[in-house]
Amino acid sequence: MAMNETRYDWLSDRWVIFAPNRENRPDQYRQSRSNSPNAIMECPFCAGHEHETPKPTLVLPENNCDETSTNRSADAAKRVRLAWQVRVVPNKFPAIHLHEPHSDENIRAHFQASSATTVSEGALGGSSVKPLQTWQANHLFQRNTPRGAHEVIIESSVHVDSITALPVDHIAIIFEAYRRRLNHWRAQRDLKYAVIFKNYGADAGASLYHSHSQLISLDFVPRDIEKVNQRLVLHHEQYGSCYICRLVNEEEERQQRILYSSEHFVALCPFASRFPYSFSIIPRAHKSRYEEISQAERQDLALVSKKTLAALESAHPSAAYNFVLQTSPFGDCYEQAHHWRLRVIPRLSKVAGFEWGSDCFINTVTPEQAAQTLRAHLS
Amino acid sequence: MAMNETRYDWLSDRWVIFAPNRENRPDQYRQSRSNSPNAIMECPFCAGHEHETPKPTLVLPENNCDETSTNRSADAAKRVRLAWQVRVVPNKFPAIHLHEPHSDENIRAHFQASSATTVSEGALGGSSVKPLQTWQANHLFQRNTPRGAHEVIIESSVHVDSITALPVDHIAIIFEAYRRRLNHWRAQRDLKYAVIFKNYGADAGASLYHSHSQLISLDFVPRDIEKVNQRLVLHHEQYGSCYICRLVNEEEERQQRILYSSEHFVALCPFASRFPYSFSIIPRAHKSRYEEISQAERQDLALVSKKTLAALESAHPSAAYNFVLQTSPFGDCYEQAHHWRLRVIPRLSKVAGFEWGSDCFINTVTPEQAAQTLRAHLS
Repeated sequence: MAMNETRYDWLSDRWVIFAPNRENRPDQYRQSRSNSPNAIMECPFCAGHEHETPKPTLVLPENNCDETSTNRSADAAKRVRLAWQVRVVPNKFPAIHLHEPHSDENIRAHFQASSATTVSEGALGGSSVKPLQTWQANHLFQRNTPRGAHEVIIESSVHVDSITALPVDHIAIIFEAYRRRLNHWRAQRDLKYAVIFKNYGADAGASLYHSHSQLISLDFVPRDIEKVNQRLVLHHEQYGSCYICRLVNEEEERQQRILYSSEHFVALCPFASRFPYSFSIIPRAHKSRYEEISQAERQDLALVSKKTLAALESAHPSAAYNFVLQTSPFGDCYEQAHHWRLRVIPRLSKVAGFEWGSDCFINTVTPEQAAQTLRAHLS
Repeated sequence: MAMNETRYDWLSDRWVIFAPNRENRPDQYRQSRSNSPNAIMECPFCAGHEHETPKPTLVLPENNCDETSTNRSADAAKRVRLAWQVRVVPNKFPAIHLHEPHSDENIRAHFQASSATTVSEGALGGSSVKPLQTWQANHLFQRNTPRGAHEVIIESSVHVDSITALPVDHIAIIFEAYRRRLNHWRAQRDLKYAVIFKNYGADAGASLYHSHSQLISLDFVPRDIEKVNQRLVLHHEQYGSCYICRLVNEEEERQQRILYSSEHFVALCPFASRFPYSFSIIPRAHKSRYEEISQAERQDLALVSKKTLAALESAHPSAAYNFVLQTSPFGDCYEQAHHWRLRVIPRLSKVAGFEWGSDCFINTVTPEQAAQTLRAHLS
């Protein structure tokens, strides 16, 4: 299997992850277009198919069923099936190879990363670039071996395609799984960042129907994340306040872009969103890490997520969407400036040449209109 | 009709264009899925349907047929039809409202733009941000009225869907139309940037089948373009050379990512490309403005474009793609650092949650593999 690697595009100041192994992952959406057998029959995420996925890194609710037992009776297998609600497993087709803190290879990879310092530091760590004074051809072709993790959060043992088909209590367990896995990866030395995201529907990049989300952790902070964090730090330094806390206050006063408000969260359509009908679910309390979420907040987040995603599915029944849980990068001394949030990005429009050529997006639906439409579909 | 506007996302330091009018544009791809009449019969870009598009801003080859004549005989109409090969018309559903240099409204809009200075200058003009010392709610909600143009380049009077179906000489006329329209918009005071792009296929954002491309000019330089330009300037200052000239030399020595070489151009799959099978067609000569292209170069570009796009269509028959012609921003004192190029972005994979959440792309096909595959499909 070809090794995954990151490569640096000096001109646009971006690292790109190359993962040739992911070409081979199964795609039920593509298969169903070519009339293959029913996707449900083949679903590796359904109860009873646990052996088709790698050994789980987390099973909720926690119990005494040992999935790995070799002499498992039919009864025991049934118990496993009934018992679990959320299973987290390593991705069989990872974009990122597993971080192994104590291997020689990892130390070598880390050393290589450090030796490519000058340009990559500027690229990843700040907005200024300090290239070497003497031009060398290998400035053009910088590469690295990324380390981290790529996990799949299987959100139910039964075959549902949307999280909105699940009870609020069940969704709260999914959010608990997110919390535990983020906590786990944050504790790993050398890792710098983790993101949880969901691809729902083929247009959003999903390849399997069964409701699931993914976690990727990395030993570098992507440029865009670094930049947003820098701007949050800047706002703190300039005004002594959190940009996102202020935003939530001002939006609540204006109301026109508010989709839903609860005790702990505000769901709103951002003023300058790039995509029609996108919205963010933002905690009222200033917390940098999603992992600090309390049990009551988690329950509330489950309710708000279900309500707002169901409104989106009702307004646009065939809409694909992504959601992205953005928590603070790991071990940043300015971590406190961050304010975690869940961003929902419906995929109703195609990104076209103008956008790829300029990074300037054309959005045909104002957030005021989007909020009004989605509010009308809240139930 | 709601007015288009730009809005500033302070956190990600990006302007977004809101164009609610574009929701109403016809979409033949959507229509054909719902079994509407044949798209060819309804095509507004075919000869004989000239009255369905606005008055052209350019018709090539130039001739004496006056499309706007009111008492046109059937013979004259036929002459028009036979005569034109490329027509450029204003977009009926523009993302950008027309720049009118001398109107009062334009002066007002310009004044408003200048008065929103502090944050937006940092945002558009450089990497540092210098917000006001006193926090004001309107920092959150900056907006502007963009001016510029949005034109459609109709690439043939007959109904072909791909540029590759046209003879090389005809494609050279399309590239001549690009040159003239870019020249026209560059000469307008207050405009800062123009880009020509093509959306081919529904997945690339096309809404009409008939082969066409688009031009958008703007009174601001999108942040990403500004940044790439700054980095080209930096490279010039540090090393006394053009980054892209160096890149072309090094890639030609290595050969592994070269797709095709001609007298004036090199087509290559970029080392850190974000999308599978993407490639760039780069002029060997260092020219900042595409508009400086000579007739011989234009003819060569037509040949190289046809060959490489046909290879892509042969390797992936159903592939949608975008192409983007990147020329230097207007009136930049560092303009000479730019090196124009044509970027081809196939849309074979879906952009998913991880990418939207981090701006870090996962590419499953290495450029070396992409170049090898595409080379095998060159004819």
